[in-house]
Amino acid sequence: MTERFILTVACKDQPGIVHAVSEVLLEIGGNIAESQQFYSPDSGTFFLRIEADATGSFEELEEKMAPVKERFDMKLGLYRKSDKVRTLIMCSKDPRTLNELLFNNHMGQLNIDVPLVVSNHQDLKQHAYFYGINFEQIPITKDTKPEAEARLLKIIDEYDIELVVLARYMQIFSDELTSKLAGKAINIHHSFLPAFKGARPYHQAHERGVKLIGATAHYVTEDLDEGPIIEQNVVRVTHSESAAELVAIGRNVEGQTLSKAVQWHTDRRVLMDGNRTVVFS
Amino acid sequence: MTERFILTVACKDQPGIVHAVSEVLLEIGGNIAESQQFYSPDSGTFFLRIEADATGSFEELEEKMAPVKERFDMKLGLYRKSDKVRTLIMCSKDPRTLNELLFNNHMGQLNIDVPLVVSNHQDLKQHAYFYGINFEQIPITKDTKPEAEARLLKIIDEYDIELVVLARYMQIFSDELTSKLAGKAINIHHSFLPAFKGARPYHQAHERGVKLIGATAHYVTEDLDEGPIIEQNVVRVTHSESAAELVAIGRNVEGQTLSKAVQWHTDRRVLMDGNRTVVFS
Amino acid sequence: MTERFILTVACKDQPGIVHAVSEVLLEIGGNIAESQQFYSPDSGTFFLRIEADATGSFEELEEKMAPVKERFDMKLGLYRKSDKVRTLIMCSKDPRTLNELLFNNHMGQLNIDVPLVVSNHQDLKQHAYFYGINFEQIPITKDTKPEAEARLLKIIDEYDIELVVLARYMQIFSDELTSKLAGKAINIHHSFLPAFKGARPYHQAHERGVKLIGATAHYVTEDLDEGPIIEQNVVRVTHSESAAELVAIGRNVEGQTLSKAVQWHTDRRVLMDGNRTVVFS
Amino acid sequence: MTERFILTVACKDQPGIVHAVSEVLLEIGGNIAESQQFYSPDSGTFFLRIEADATGSFEELEEKMAPVKERFDMKLGLYRKSDKVRTLIMCSKDPRTLNELLFNNHMGQLNIDVPLVVSNHQDLKQHAYFYGINFEQIPITKDTKPEAEARLLKIIDEYDIELVVLARYMQIFSDELTSKLAGKAINIHHSFLPAFKGARPYHQAHERGVKLIGATAHYVTEDLDEGPIIEQNVVRVTHSESAAELVAIGRNVEGQTLSKAVQWHTDRRVLMDGNRTVVFS
Repeated sequence: MTERFILTVACKDQPGIVHAVSEVLLEIGGNIAESQQFYSPDSGTFFLRIEADATGSFEELEEKMAPVKERFDMKLGLYRKSDKVRTLIMCSKDPRTLNELLFNNHMGQLNIDVPLVVSNHQDLKQHAYFYGINFEQIPITKDTKPEAEARLLKIIDEYDIELVVLARYMQIFSDELTSKLAGKAINIHHSFLPAFKGARPYHQAHERGVKLIGATAHYVTEDLDEGPIIEQNVVRVTHSESAAELVAIGRNVEGQTLSKAVQWHTDRRVLMDGNRTVVFS
Repeated sequence: MTERFILTVACKDQPGIVHAVSEVLLEIGGNIAESQQFYSPDSGTFFLRIEADATGSFEELEEKMAPVKERFDMKLGLYRKSDKVRTLIMCSKDPRTLNELLFNNHMGQLNIDVPLVVSNHQDLKQHAYFYGINFEQIPITKDTKPEAEARLLKIIDEYDIELVVLARYMQIFSDELTSKLAGKAINIHHSFLPAFKGARPYHQAHERGVKLIGATAHYVTEDLDEGPIIEQNVVRVTHSESAAELVAIGRNVEGQTLSKAVQWHTDRRVLMDGNRTVVFS
Repeated sequence: MTERFILTVACKDQPGIVHAVSEVLLEIGGNIAESQQFYSPDSGTFFLRIEADATGSFEELEEKMAPVKERFDMKLGLYRKSDKVRTLIMCSKDPRTLNELLFNNHMGQLNIDVPLVVSNHQDLKQHAYFYGINFEQIPITKDTKPEAEARLLKIIDEYDIELVVLARYMQIFSDELTSKLAGKAINIHHSFLPAFKGARPYHQAHERGVKLIGATAHYVTEDLDEGPIIEQNVVRVTHSESAAELVAIGRNVEGQTLSKAVQWHTDRRVLMDGNRTVVFS
Repeated sequence: MTERFILTVACKDQPGIVHAVSEVLLEIGGNIAESQQFYSPDSGTFFLRIEADATGSFEELEEKMAPVKERFDMKLGLYRKSDKVRTLIMCSKDPRTLNELLFNNHMGQLNIDVPLVVSNHQDLKQHAYFYGINFEQIPITKDTKPEAEARLLKIIDEYDIELVVLARYMQIFSDELTSKLAGKAINIHHSFLPAFKGARPYHQAHERGVKLIGATAHYVTEDLDEGPIIEQNVVRVTHSESAAELVAIGRNVEGQTLSKAVQWHTDRRVLMDGNRTVVFS
């Protein structure tokens, strides 16, 4: 009987890292199923991600990796592959992105467990219910923002949420909330960042006459639209599409891009290298 | 015996345009081989491009289109399909884009006649010569810019140049020269505009950690990097590519994008709608 | 007050077609909003599709086009743009393709009216109901095939069905049914036809070690997998994907490809040129 | 002072492989710069490719890997990264693919050293000369085929050729020659294999009315068009392109696809898994 574990490592580059980690895996009866690594010349950091099938237990893995972690001063992640990531999805009125996430999860393509969908509107309640997921409306106005965010934090705590996915939530978090969610919240921006930051990007794109429009999935940071990029995609458009048609065309690529980013994040394939991401896709 | 003509029309949208134009074509024994049109709600302009094989002469076409042009207050273009566009290519040191253009032209894929390649350096002389094309070096420094641009204008005049293609020329024209070349000069910017305007876009792209890099072919205008976009393309990259590797990857897509833009321009497929282009590709 | 009409024309190429059609449009106060044409050298056929906003009525259009149709011996199609196409969707157990179609239609991206979903299994009943659509199971075995097809024909008649969409229905129609549905049924084949015809195409693709997999939407004909192709797409894969993973990856592209084909068909953008399609996309 | 080495491994999957290899690398002062691995469930084979910068010598690497190779019964490849692959390019009349290869190599993007271009025609002599490469014409007719192939084998021997690239050579090798070149010759087929095997694939594609055309780079085997696929690409086409236009469109993608396959092969990124390839791109 084996169990599959995922290890992620980030540390200063130096000889012997792979040898040390592979020794631990040998000791717990592990066979490496997948392994990727990257050395970042920008930061001098070595990144490693391994999936291994082991006869030993997760506790043994943790115990034996402890001295290795200390020796190389690693930022170490150890996970059971079968553990799903507790995920809160937040949305507003547009169903496209929410539907893409919930359907893909229903089909077993995402590694998430979604106990709740939160929205500032009622419109998408039925979409959540169809997949057997609870729905809570948290209306938000300028005045009620502090309460709304407090309620959100309570939910994150109560439901044991590890990841917040903003599926076109369209509201900007306070700096305080943003900093609490650092590295744990993924947003979809409906443009090919860094082009067309800010509001109404499709209208900006139409105005500028671009020939491709895109979408960017990124971690939420205090600098709006400046967070580390996880995934981007584009789709070809022509002069003949209006701004409204760009919105419709873009919706598909938004959902696919966000869904891919969530899949990679929850498969522990995304590591941070400063404000850049290493994606072991 | 028939000859193929190209007609391009831009005028205020109103009923009867297609009917009037097709009547002229009937009168000169013309058969429509290709026809595309577009109404721009932004500007209220109607755009039309027709290729027709006619038994009548080009002069007859001009004569019979004259009253139609006046009636609808058209911006009208009439061309013989077989006429090649006199084109000056300007480059610097990197051969990729120049090679793509000259090779594609050699293969009959571009509709241009290139009497001369101009560069501020000597490096690419042999590339021009290989395709039997003259080469002239016009060195350029801060001090000699006025003379250099004067020489360039003289060349444009002497060689009867209709189109200037900046194949990574890497020098910025004076406002005066730019305004003289308005609508007649195509540049390739090595980023997916409007992202990463200005210098060293691949380094900016690497810094920002984008997952796609691109190239933009656009008309040269006084607002640097803000001219009407003709064509854009992107190519996928990952965290593992350095800025220098992005440069190498990008070179291919730059050449292809510029080549496509030149092909469309010289096939009279690009019409201007304010700062946007209508591309009847 | 204007109404938008769609005209499609296929006839022997000859001068004066566009002029004659545009004259009719002028007479009914029509303004051409979109127009595309193609001459097929293979068959000598001229194809035309026009969208026009007219002050005149549909009946006037029919009346005035009648002599033009006769004069040029046209295969003529006249439609109100606002008329939705009565569509029957048939599926089996896999929800992906059905969900893509129903969701896109729900978002207003398809021009169809779906009164019923038919399946040989019960699995997808809830997916139909979620979008407020009736569902009927018609189980099918070797022995019951004639009855099942008879029931299907009755449904097509009763519900006034104009288009049958096989969203991974996985059953092969009898020649008789196929010939009755000629030009009115669209299937999605889960490979890049003509590669990997027949059963289990993803397993064939894995076996052959291809680097791209695809999907093909085509009209159903008696020659299985040989019908006129409407749309194709591919997605990149690597050595690391198993046949089962190819199936999962392919499902997305299948749904998108079929959805696009249905959109084009119901927008009257697909004309037949022998066994090839002209797609005025 | 370090030197970069490449190691490729294929052997029966079993625990301890990575640990053993990384131990050797540690012993020769090696730091892993790049590492990829794959377990093929189809064949039970484990594949590994490592690039490492080492202070030790190549001879030390060979010596220390010898017992590891024996212990795991490895198919082992050891290379200096800086060693270029001696490559013979064969072509016929069409310059596109040859130009793409020679130009990319000139730009430092390919890891090949090309002492000679061979063709059955004279047409492309100047293209070879421009890049300072020798050119030899070996005319070939039904009768002279044995002599022509004998001359070819002599060249391969004299010039110490490791790789033969068929850049649209358009001649079919005898079974004898094919078997001698097994795994050492790469061909470009101008279709998306396995669709349109055999002659005139673009005409077949036009006839069938496909919406994408493609190119396939593959190793040459005795089964024509059935060799292991290294890389494939497609490009979108429409009803409006003639077979001749498909040929022109396809030429670009052919050159790019073949160039990429050559790059991967000579970077030792392509390992064989039966008739499939593992490409560590």
